[in-house]
Amino acid sequence: MMNLSSRIRPSLLKAVAPACARAMSADAKLVDLSINEKTGIATLTMNRPPVNSLNLELLQGLSKALQELEDNRKCRGMILTSSSPTVFSAGLDIMEMYKPKPDRVKAFWSTLQEVWLQLFGSSYPTVAAINGHSPAGGCLLSLSCEYRVMVGPQYTIGLNETKLGIVAPKWFMSSMLAAIPYRQTELALTTGRMFSTEEALKIGLIDEVATDKADAIAKAEKFLGLFAKIHPVARKLTKLNLRNDALDWLQQNRELDLNIFLSFVNQPIVQSSLEKYLEALKNKQGK
Amino acid sequence: MMNLSSRIRPSLLKAVAPACARAMSADAKLVDLSINEKTGIATLTMNRPPVNSLNLELLQGLSKALQELEDNRKCRGMILTSSSPTVFSAGLDIMEMYKPKPDRVKAFWSTLQEVWLQLFGSSYPTVAAINGHSPAGGCLLSLSCEYRVMVGPQYTIGLNETKLGIVAPKWFMSSMLAAIPYRQTELALTTGRMFSTEEALKIGLIDEVATDKADAIAKAEKFLGLFAKIHPVARKLTKLNLRNDALDWLQQNRELDLNIFLSFVNQPIVQSSLEKYLEALKNKQGK
Amino acid sequence: MMNLSSRIRPSLLKAVAPACARAMSADAKLVDLSINEKTGIATLTMNRPPVNSLNLELLQGLSKALQELEDNRKCRGMILTSSSPTVFSAGLDIMEMYKPKPDRVKAFWSTLQEVWLQLFGSSYPTVAAINGHSPAGGCLLSLSCEYRVMVGPQYTIGLNETKLGIVAPKWFMSSMLAAIPYRQTELALTTGRMFSTEEALKIGLIDEVATDKADAIAKAEKFLGLFAKIHPVARKLTKLNLRNDALDWLQQNRELDLNIFLSFVNQPIVQSSLEKYLEALKNKQGK
Repeated sequence: MMNLSSRIRPSLLKAVAPACARAMSADAKLVDLSINEKTGIATLTMNRPPVNSLNLELLQGLSKALQELEDNRKCRGMILTSSSPTVFSAGLDIMEMYKPKPDRVKAFWSTLQEVWLQLFGSSYPTVAAINGHSPAGGCLLSLSCEYRVMVGPQYTIGLNETKLGIVAPKWFMSSMLAAIPYRQTELALTTGRMFSTEEALKIGLIDEVATDKADAIAKAEKFLGLFAKIHPVARKLTKLNLRNDALDWLQQNRELDLNIFLSFVNQPIVQSSLEKYLEALKNKQGK
Repeated sequence: MMNLSSRIRPSLLKAVAPACARAMSADAKLVDLSINEKTGIATLTMNRPPVNSLNLELLQGLSKALQELEDNRKCRGMILTSSSPTVFSAGLDIMEMYKPKPDRVKAFWSTLQEVWLQLFGSSYPTVAAINGHSPAGGCLLSLSCEYRVMVGPQYTIGLNETKLGIVAPKWFMSSMLAAIPYRQTELALTTGRMFSTEEALKIGLIDEVATDKADAIAKAEKFLGLFAKIHPVARKLTKLNLRNDALDWLQQNRELDLNIFLSFVNQPIVQSSLEKYLEALKNKQGK
Repeated sequence: MMNLSSRIRPSLLKAVAPACARAMSADAKLVDLSINEKTGIATLTMNRPPVNSLNLELLQGLSKALQELEDNRKCRGMILTSSSPTVFSAGLDIMEMYKPKPDRVKAFWSTLQEVWLQLFGSSYPTVAAINGHSPAGGCLLSLSCEYRVMVGPQYTIGLNETKLGIVAPKWFMSSMLAAIPYRQTELALTTGRMFSTEEALKIGLIDEVATDKADAIAKAEKFLGLFAKIHPVARKLTKLNLRNDALDWLQQNRELDLNIFLSFVNQPIVQSSLEKYLEALKNKQGK
């Protein structure tokens, strides 16, 4: 489902491609996907100004790009980053949850599930080059990668859902548990804590700190270089064996997980909270 | 089951309550439960001198108090501590296991299960202010809380069951795994190791060291303050999602777990060991 | 199954035994098993020069020795080590996989499964005294023990299967997860990393570094001394409760796991890789 890339055949793309570092999805404006033909390393850039709020279209763009990479035999790794100078991703777009249309909000959550399944379970290695703030859904995307390099010290990262009155779904938790131990996960999630880069490094929520985006990309490429001499299929099966329980849970429970989200969003108290929040935001911007 | 607090209606208590820090269960002598009406923080004090050995009545008192807090909408957190100057709790009362009467020993273990389910799965945040030694069952109670502050450096803590010839049940293990990694849990449990406060802090078995009980309480309150702006329901569901597997196991296996305990206790070799132990204790006290 | 020791009765062995440190399996040349009658500590030495490649016969020798210890009530612990001056074990013998005979290759993998079940689930405490390089299957054996002392700084250890184009089976992963956290396990396995003793100590892959084999054995004995006053049955049940999920998986899936291995080995591409590897090895040795 949600496989939006089936219309684009990688072989066709390859046929018309210039040398290296070309755009694979020039038509998709919300994400930019380029691949270095020499190294096989792809760069997937979220490009929905100002803060990469994850709406349906951005998620569809990500899903399409991830599928293209899955189908591209030359892909030896992917770096996920942002075109914003200060934000990796602000998380789920609140407008998708406010007075939602049934079909759209279902597609929204289903596509988020799909993106997670594709990213957390990708056959190729993945790194988040976190070049800005990364709360909630932004943190989820970075935790779904295999490695995290974050620009510091000025940015923050965390699954702060409880601070927003939201419960992080089980697969959000699984993603954090893939990075840090249970004890730290429980403390981070129940307190909704946002970590500075230094704190995130200490706890293991990120793997390296970078001085700027270029440095983050360079460090991400160095990590991906570790797999240069590793057999891709052995690597993929090893990763999937380790991540199988978490992936399997969502694959078996997509409908349940969707219904939990829908019943949450459709509560009157949640809708009135969102309304107040949006009004406050409007007033703030009006000043 | 074991819900002993159903006779006391929180609304009634609220109606007759004076200002703050009043006793909610004045009739229960083995535990003291007070709640600060301003902050919503409850203090639950074990009060069975000299060492808070966990017998049926103390466990019933704890279970009743935990249920009262669950039913009290004003409760924003709970601190578990001891009235003893040197012991948090010495663990299960050996007299409950020596020549046990069938009905009483069943109630004893069932109530211990109930206390654990209530404490490990409480909707409100919990902290153990460990103001003295905390072996075996005492350690279990503290591990079932979400945070541990321990007075040091003179006290010790650990699940030392194997040193006593006992096997810690699966839910004891789950409680330790919620605090420290698998590797450290296996070493701690198989060697039956008691940790000094310093060692416990280093390994993550406790979160902070305090100079005395007042300091421990102050640090516990500071931790609970982290949740002041967190939505209680989102927090509760997040905690339960994380702890669900462990809670669910005991809920599904209470009968099995009870039978394992009963068949252990009723072994002739266990009874003769207890007899020798109690005689040695009597002789020691007689000197 | 694979119980090769049933012909040797421990009681008989005891009857003919001299003082201490006698050989229990003088007939088995590929492994040497001696037990200190005073301390109850057994030393199991792999002795298949030059590098203790794990072939069917060495695995059968290990399985037989482990069963003897399981049946020996005096055994209070076991130290696994190597007679080679520089290699603990080089891992699975590649000759067992090249042009394999159906019956033998099945027995080979089944015996490896059996050795792991016996070692990871032994009732007595186990230590690996790793006195040399310990890649792949060698690392697996050491990870299946409860404690690891490694001679350093010159040797390396790790599950480097992905570097060889192989996928470590689920129980290899479980063994590593029993020593180090999930995050470090995923990085180690996907990159196929070999760790120096210093790196291994830092990450928790080993517990102590020793200067030489004698020092490693002394440190192993000191660890086993921690259990001198622990009730063996309580210890055993505690260990098995903790390791039960991992053991249970393989016990329930031996056939599936065997078939995965067989279908891997019988791939033409794997056979041609092995052929090239063996030719390269021959040319190297011929120089």
